[in-house]
Amino acid sequence: MTGHLLTVGDEILLGQIVNTNAAWLGERLAGAGVDLRRAETVGDDVDVIAAAIERAYADGAAVVVVTGGLGPTHDDVTRAAVARVFGRDLTFHPDLFAAIEARYTERGRTMPPIGRVMAEVPDGFDVLDNPKGTAPGLWGTRERAGRRDVVAVLPGVPYEMEAITEGSVLPRLRALQDGFVLSRTLLTVGRGESDLAGMLDGWTAPPGLALAYLPSLGTVRLRVTARGPDREAAQALVDEGAGALRDRLGTLVFGEGTTTLEAVVNDLLAEHGRTVAFAESCTGGAVAARVASVPGASRVLRGGVVAYDNAVKADLLGVASDALDDFGSVSEPVALQMARGVRERLGADVGVATTGVAGPTGGTPEKPVGTVWVAYADADGERAVGLRLTRDRTVNIGLTTTAALDLLRRQTLRSVGEG
Amino acid sequence: MTGHLLTVGDEILLGQIVNTNAAWLGERLAGAGVDLRRAETVGDDVDVIAAAIERAYADGAAVVVVTGGLGPTHDDVTRAAVARVFGRDLTFHPDLFAAIEARYTERGRTMPPIGRVMAEVPDGFDVLDNPKGTAPGLWGTRERAGRRDVVAVLPGVPYEMEAITEGSVLPRLRALQDGFVLSRTLLTVGRGESDLAGMLDGWTAPPGLALAYLPSLGTVRLRVTARGPDREAAQALVDEGAGALRDRLGTLVFGEGTTTLEAVVNDLLAEHGRTVAFAESCTGGAVAARVASVPGASRVLRGGVVAYDNAVKADLLGVASDALDDFGSVSEPVALQMARGVRERLGADVGVATTGVAGPTGGTPEKPVGTVWVAYADADGERAVGLRLTRDRTVNIGLTTTAALDLLRRQTLRSVGEG
Repeated sequence: MTGHLLTVGDEILLGQIVNTNAAWLGERLAGAGVDLRRAETVGDDVDVIAAAIERAYADGAAVVVVTGGLGPTHDDVTRAAVARVFGRDLTFHPDLFAAIEARYTERGRTMPPIGRVMAEVPDGFDVLDNPKGTAPGLWGTRERAGRRDVVAVLPGVPYEMEAITEGSVLPRLRALQDGFVLSRTLLTVGRGESDLAGMLDGWTAPPGLALAYLPSLGTVRLRVTARGPDREAAQALVDEGAGALRDRLGTLVFGEGTTTLEAVVNDLLAEHGRTVAFAESCTGGAVAARVASVPGASRVLRGGVVAYDNAVKADLLGVASDALDDFGSVSEPVALQMARGVRERLGADVGVATTGVAGPTGGTPEKPVGTVWVAYADADGERAVGLRLTRDRTVNIGLTTTAALDLLRRQTLRSVGEG
Repeated sequence: MTGHLLTVGDEILLGQIVNTNAAWLGERLAGAGVDLRRAETVGDDVDVIAAAIERAYADGAAVVVVTGGLGPTHDDVTRAAVARVFGRDLTFHPDLFAAIEARYTERGRTMPPIGRVMAEVPDGFDVLDNPKGTAPGLWGTRERAGRRDVVAVLPGVPYEMEAITEGSVLPRLRALQDGFVLSRTLLTVGRGESDLAGMLDGWTAPPGLALAYLPSLGTVRLRVTARGPDREAAQALVDEGAGALRDRLGTLVFGEGTTTLEAVVNDLLAEHGRTVAFAESCTGGAVAARVASVPGASRVLRGGVVAYDNAVKADLLGVASDALDDFGSVSEPVALQMARGVRERLGADVGVATTGVAGPTGGTPEKPVGTVWVAYADADGERAVGLRLTRDRTVNIGLTTTAALDLLRRQTLRSVGEG
């Protein structure tokens, strides 16, 4: 079924808040078989909201999902706009009012007098329970010209919106449809979109299965979406697709779903009882910070040395001044000595190092901006990888950070016989 | 002038990516005097894109800003949609092609054959330089029924979109308007929105001047926007507003415009010839990484120690085991010893340290999750600040990182007699 997503709120339109609700709902609606054609944001204006809903139906949407503007303040006008579109009166429900008032009391707050509007429901609409807040959701339908128009109205507060969507809206939407839609997302690192496409050359998605490439800095997500007559058929199809991709891409796939490379690295090291320390020049601490961002990082992270100045590379990491003089700080020998040095001095099982010319200045003809080395050392050996990145400092630091984490992941897999 | 923002991309509609571009652009467009009525997201479909643009003009928009779908793959159809709406042919520009190809070569990459489309420009459109990537932006106008319709077309990659917007689009939009709109954005750190509002109590914006609070993690931006008959009038008004705010907020204001706290800290230290080293526990390297993210960081950054494990605090920073035993690693004495230790061992003028319980586990009744110390030490003295933050790990790490940079800024200002 086709759908339209309408976000209401001046603060979203003016960019004061990032619209994370739209992404969250877009993904859940797609997963429930709703084919969103457009997603739209409008301000807190009853005429504009009503016009946007009418236009969505005129464009062929069967369901319009509206978030925001359901609260108890004067600029919350979504309820009135929806009632107008559906030609219904707003009727006060004393039992709903009592329930909302009880929610306030439970939280030790007093309901503002204007909160009364939250108990007004367009005639014929269903009230959707809000387990996380006060303003309930609303669900309305109308028959018109042989079609059924559906509207689901949700608060804008993310955790309230999410709870009502999961608990009430998605089950109702699935019940309206024939067939079932499921997706899986494989996370890859180290190759670009076109390289991956080349590796998948010769594989054709079976009917009912769609593949999407979702690139971001240093990683590409591959999303397979299956549509089948029922849950089992969709599950079998999406599993077949994900399996085929994993067979072809091997360890380029580092995980699935919403995990991160740093979370995968944390778990992999913890699983094999290994600790790690980082020696960072051009990344300035960003690699260690990504590992530290994961809850439970203290299982695996000893720490690190940010060796920005060459004196720090020598004093704290034991990099030989000969190596710095002969090869320069951005070189394979220095990267390897940094990895070895931080491993030894911090008493970690594994050392990982970065050194590079991040830019915008500091490049030379032999080592232009974007020249980077990442290195790995453990008790059994070591490995360094040279990269030639971009001219942009931010991009170079980000790509180097990801490359260092990926080197750590791959070398760990290799040394435990899984890579 | 009224505007419409159109984001193109299946991955946005399907919720695979959060549309941060819409917020970024919403704020910048508001600051340039563009009154956004709607913001919309559509998929990679030439008909749907063209219809959305046409409808925006029909609804009264004078300018439509489109992002996404300008790249070199088959699903990048924005260029064709815009050309169709404006009734222009797409003409291949050999010089633009050569410039784009050179960008690929510089990066050691080969332009894919289909990349040729990036050098196709709708007749009569201006090419907007993309300093951060390959696909240029486009700017087109048409006269119709006594009105001028403007379209600005931008790539979807955020840093490319941002660079073209700042460099080309905003100046052109300002030049199109009657009267003149100017804004200045003051950047504050260390106080929340309501504290700032309290400090500004008693100040009323003069007619023609508007104040917006734009809070984000640890910082609040205050945007004053002035509308006047000409540039001079608008400039005088906006300067009056910004001056009044600066008078009331003092050193809470760390800068203006698009600078960052880390850039301000870099410049401040460089100006006074000071070097810094960081000792980080709970932030895991994030403070040093923020300083290192700024071009020219090597002027001031010696490096740092990520002392995640207590053994690293003792071995590399010289924190006394007594202090760790008696007070615990999250304590004022340990934070101060870390700051002193990193300053001495890395030979820096200033040492800054962080230690805290980031969460979600590790809290105790005396030191719950969110308990944090940041510390500063230089040749003349030292200072530690205790914080009680939130229950969320990501928020705690972010706020601690900002608090450490702000402590460094304030202590430096104080020691040079400016704070």
